[in-house]
Amino acid sequence: MNTINVGLVGITGYAGMELARLLAGHPAMRLSMACSRAEAGKRLGEFYPFLEHMPGADVIISVFEPREAARHCDLVFLAVPAGTAMDMAGPLLDAGVKVVDLSADFRIHDAETYEHWYRHEHHRKDLLRWAVYGLPELYAADIAQTSLTANPGCYPTSVILGLYAALKNELIEPDDIVVDAKSGATGAGRKAAVPTLFCEVSDNFRAYGLPRHRHTPEIEQEISLLAGREVRLSFNTHLLPMNRGILSTIYTKLKYPVTLDSVHEAFRHTWERSPWVRVLPKGALPETRYVRGSMFCDIGVVVDPRTRRLTILAAIDNLCRGASGQALANANLMCGLPVNAGLEHLAPLA
Amino acid sequence: MNTINVGLVGITGYAGMELARLLAGHPAMRLSMACSRAEAGKRLGEFYPFLEHMPGADVIISVFEPREAARHCDLVFLAVPAGTAMDMAGPLLDAGVKVVDLSADFRIHDAETYEHWYRHEHHRKDLLRWAVYGLPELYAADIAQTSLTANPGCYPTSVILGLYAALKNELIEPDDIVVDAKSGATGAGRKAAVPTLFCEVSDNFRAYGLPRHRHTPEIEQEISLLAGREVRLSFNTHLLPMNRGILSTIYTKLKYPVTLDSVHEAFRHTWERSPWVRVLPKGALPETRYVRGSMFCDIGVVVDPRTRRLTILAAIDNLCRGASGQALANANLMCGLPVNAGLEHLAPLA
Amino acid sequence: MNTINVGLVGITGYAGMELARLLAGHPAMRLSMACSRAEAGKRLGEFYPFLEHMPGADVIISVFEPREAARHCDLVFLAVPAGTAMDMAGPLLDAGVKVVDLSADFRIHDAETYEHWYRHEHHRKDLLRWAVYGLPELYAADIAQTSLTANPGCYPTSVILGLYAALKNELIEPDDIVVDAKSGATGAGRKAAVPTLFCEVSDNFRAYGLPRHRHTPEIEQEISLLAGREVRLSFNTHLLPMNRGILSTIYTKLKYPVTLDSVHEAFRHTWERSPWVRVLPKGALPETRYVRGSMFCDIGVVVDPRTRRLTILAAIDNLCRGASGQALANANLMCGLPVNAGLEHLAPLA
Amino acid sequence: MNTINVGLVGITGYAGMELARLLAGHPAMRLSMACSRAEAGKRLGEFYPFLEHMPGADVIISVFEPREAARHCDLVFLAVPAGTAMDMAGPLLDAGVKVVDLSADFRIHDAETYEHWYRHEHHRKDLLRWAVYGLPELYAADIAQTSLTANPGCYPTSVILGLYAALKNELIEPDDIVVDAKSGATGAGRKAAVPTLFCEVSDNFRAYGLPRHRHTPEIEQEISLLAGREVRLSFNTHLLPMNRGILSTIYTKLKYPVTLDSVHEAFRHTWERSPWVRVLPKGALPETRYVRGSMFCDIGVVVDPRTRRLTILAAIDNLCRGASGQALANANLMCGLPVNAGLEHLAPLA
Repeated sequence: MNTINVGLVGITGYAGMELARLLAGHPAMRLSMACSRAEAGKRLGEFYPFLEHMPGADVIISVFEPREAARHCDLVFLAVPAGTAMDMAGPLLDAGVKVVDLSADFRIHDAETYEHWYRHEHHRKDLLRWAVYGLPELYAADIAQTSLTANPGCYPTSVILGLYAALKNELIEPDDIVVDAKSGATGAGRKAAVPTLFCEVSDNFRAYGLPRHRHTPEIEQEISLLAGREVRLSFNTHLLPMNRGILSTIYTKLKYPVTLDSVHEAFRHTWERSPWVRVLPKGALPETRYVRGSMFCDIGVVVDPRTRRLTILAAIDNLCRGASGQALANANLMCGLPVNAGLEHLAPLA
Repeated sequence: MNTINVGLVGITGYAGMELARLLAGHPAMRLSMACSRAEAGKRLGEFYPFLEHMPGADVIISVFEPREAARHCDLVFLAVPAGTAMDMAGPLLDAGVKVVDLSADFRIHDAETYEHWYRHEHHRKDLLRWAVYGLPELYAADIAQTSLTANPGCYPTSVILGLYAALKNELIEPDDIVVDAKSGATGAGRKAAVPTLFCEVSDNFRAYGLPRHRHTPEIEQEISLLAGREVRLSFNTHLLPMNRGILSTIYTKLKYPVTLDSVHEAFRHTWERSPWVRVLPKGALPETRYVRGSMFCDIGVVVDPRTRRLTILAAIDNLCRGASGQALANANLMCGLPVNAGLEHLAPLA
Repeated sequence: MNTINVGLVGITGYAGMELARLLAGHPAMRLSMACSRAEAGKRLGEFYPFLEHMPGADVIISVFEPREAARHCDLVFLAVPAGTAMDMAGPLLDAGVKVVDLSADFRIHDAETYEHWYRHEHHRKDLLRWAVYGLPELYAADIAQTSLTANPGCYPTSVILGLYAALKNELIEPDDIVVDAKSGATGAGRKAAVPTLFCEVSDNFRAYGLPRHRHTPEIEQEISLLAGREVRLSFNTHLLPMNRGILSTIYTKLKYPVTLDSVHEAFRHTWERSPWVRVLPKGALPETRYVRGSMFCDIGVVVDPRTRRLTILAAIDNLCRGASGQALANANLMCGLPVNAGLEHLAPLA
Repeated sequence: MNTINVGLVGITGYAGMELARLLAGHPAMRLSMACSRAEAGKRLGEFYPFLEHMPGADVIISVFEPREAARHCDLVFLAVPAGTAMDMAGPLLDAGVKVVDLSADFRIHDAETYEHWYRHEHHRKDLLRWAVYGLPELYAADIAQTSLTANPGCYPTSVILGLYAALKNELIEPDDIVVDAKSGATGAGRKAAVPTLFCEVSDNFRAYGLPRHRHTPEIEQEISLLAGREVRLSFNTHLLPMNRGILSTIYTKLKYPVTLDSVHEAFRHTWERSPWVRVLPKGALPETRYVRGSMFCDIGVVVDPRTRRLTILAAIDNLCRGASGQALANANLMCGLPVNAGLEHLAPLA
């Protein structure tokens, strides 16, 4: 494969760290620019000791500048906060650089909805129509054609993949869905803050963000498209005392009494050509460790005839499948590479 | 206070360990018998190094024998598996010894329901009518009169306390309740087993027991009594990578649109005379660390007008409030002591 | 006992949090003042939800002011950084208020040594001669007489107690001691900082502060006093992925070949009247969990005839014995109370 | 590259799990046999859900039988306990199958020493002369020629690599070395046992195996070879509350006063052609997370002029570099592949 030069804006967060890790093992992409205002001037290997003796270690961290980026990069990953990415994407696209945006800025098709939930103005509404929602199982063909991919949120990735087969096969009532999602602490970001100190998170469990987590509109947008009508659901998030992993337990009501056998068969059939979605055997339940550092989404299904509920459990790695790995898969598609280039290796699971 | 001699059958599990800890600081109870077939003959302080230099350390572990127990004890705690306790309770009661049973054997009033969920016969159905369900906030007066208390399960304690005010104040539909409960690993017991090894639980999160956790009928029994009609709910359990603590996130539907203010006021009012139930300020959510090693049940309420749902979050310590501390509170009541004797101290929270 | 009013300056750190916890269960002391510039104006129970429904919850956090303190308090605990405490202690002592200083400001008898290691000036050298080093096993009588106790550091507490019997019995070469100490993350404090975020500490182990940890001179001062001559030792610290606990593994050379039996007997004999120091049985090794939340220092001894070394392992809880519990014990002595008042309860160990 | 068929005996332990993980991503090796008496008959992907949809998932677990192994495999990894491997290796070698033994059975050149420390007889002393100690940095040429590699222990790998430059450059006294080593809990194996349950290891830290850990003779053998004379050292092990990683803090005495600059330069120079050994910048200390899932050994050096000590800190991943990754590197060498084939990817570090 030809070498593709990529840039990464926002290297100090966990998504940036994970992208640096994945790019170090990518067969065709080369990290040729890494940006961070706070760390500019350092060698990347000095800042991230794990990178030493690996590709990318010698990149000098720089301050983001669109023309510099255009000179060095075919594609740029934006791993910066919502509200910041929207201003960076335009100049890059104008300069002919492809963009994978890991923030929420281009995920919500409706700018008003975005502004309502994110509580700031969207000043690049003009780009919204070009952005493709970067969930490869749903939109691979579109992603391959676009220059601007809106990389999905971590929670939405697990919820949309979890619900997809149930909605496509019309097994459930779309209006009565409750999602109880739990995430490892990398999801809370890498800013210095007392609530995410080790001693505050360790040996502790709590909910947060109820009842208005910002990933709600993104999930509802995609679920509504799948259901063919507007859906509202209850989405609730919790913080786990561990680094990585999301498990979303999704409570739904069956439209009519069906057996576990037929639900399971529907899920298996729906996903049989998607190597990254693993529908577990009947009776098996997903564990976050089994998807660690990977693109897998493990799905378990439970039918409770007592309450006529279908419970769907979906596990992903919030940083790999839920952020940087998915960004890399999207970049692969946008650059004409196999979607799984650089994403074939298993991470330690214990 | 006069000294009350108590025995503890089943010291090797986490409930037994927690009771030994609490009894070491009790102002009126003295541990005078500790039973374990496997460890018989050892000093308790040798088996549990944390007990050395504390009351109870010099007790010699013995094999349970009802007549010996009657000679040494006014009250016996049974911290043994379901199915075993039922055979121990009878002879103790016959010999005039009070019993607090931490197993499920006397919790379910209906023997058939017990047998259906626990999959073994109940051979002391005659005792069921005498047993009191040992949740002090609901049944303190009855507990004070009985000789046989059925100590509640850990999950049910959190769910019943969590739902109580909502049902009493008729705020919610009793037929549409989903409980997503998460427990620390002490809840899985202290038996040598690969799935509960450190490296299998650490950095991992998973559901288990779906859709038929044995605590379901116990919860449904008490919720049905509160609702005034038979209720079925969806009860789902998960294993947290930490030692202690349960957080139950309880999803309910409001009967009619009410504000957070009025829901919160109803909860506050309902619990204002119960010092162990702390209704958190509006907007605050419970954390398991804040109830560690204590009898507190911290309750947070969330109203989502978008979906007309009331979400109740209830946190307890699964070993203290959910097992041994509650057993001690029940024993206090049964012995005419203040309910909180020996239970007034705060445990480390970080 | 009469009520003793105490104040606590610096409530937001882990030592302050631990003191608030312990004071809530103290039979004779009442927290009547809690100071923090950043949190002034809040109810303590609002700031620390674990305190709600407990003594102390209704105290309003205030800004420290010596005359106010003198009006409300018989004794004040200073849980503030080194360099800050020295300026607070004088006015309090002048106003007749007893002081237990948890910082390092009055621990080092020699002001020059202090200034060399702490890299700032000592402006209350005049108070150094009055300060007593607050290790109750060594200096209880002096502590009972003083108005200013310098509460020992966490690491020094474990190392001094660990080495005491070996030096007193002249078993080891004082000039060839290596201490490899490991601490839980509460020891790193409660300031917002990236290196102590959950995801940086979890699943990780590292040394820090080598070769110049500030606790070195404090250890050397006390060890030199015990050895009767100036001692330099190698003191090395590591950060454990857990909240609480210190284990110091102390490598020493035996002066002459002695058996484990005689070393163990010497340790047992030395400590037989000290209920908080538990010399473990031969062959047993201390574990941090067994001292959690307590004043115990568990000591194990290992003799290796192959290398003629005596290895001493000493475990304490860094926040309770290593800071706030010890401060409370010192306050008890200074106020004429039993040294263990409010410190008799066992914390959860699993 | 041609496909090399390999077998793995002992798949249920953590070393077997890690090898299965690494082989799934190896460009030239194919797992064609996986043995476990207890799990025989299952698909490997059923037993290890993380392997589903990856190479190796469809292998059926079988009972080890040497002739079957010879039919399917060019090389076999033995991940079985010490004492068991010695009987398996002979028949495999006789049948022309290469062997990498992850147990201790062929590490110690002197059979008497082995029998003294491992407390059982060595019944294949005849093979000892053929076995090569599989530390690639020291013995790559010999490993490439042998059919039987004795894969080093996890702790010895860290200690030998840590001390190598200090001994080669004659910086330290070989007779005064103390090793304080700490390991994650995967090092304790995957057998069901109470002391390695989650709730016993979590939030806890302790030493174990003192003063006679079985890795001592292996370390002394290699250090003696490096020092040119028989060396005894003090080797001490501790259990960390985390899954993976070893940090060995190695305390040595400098032969003569040297600066950190010159020590650091000696280390850098010694290792400059060894890509897996990373000598950190002066002042930097290794962290286990930075080597997770990799073959790196990160080394930090500290000179303390106060005590004239050189402290060396060496961090590895105990399962990858300390067991299965190193076994794979050795297998690569034995099969004529690049030593790092299948070992180039970085694992998640947070």
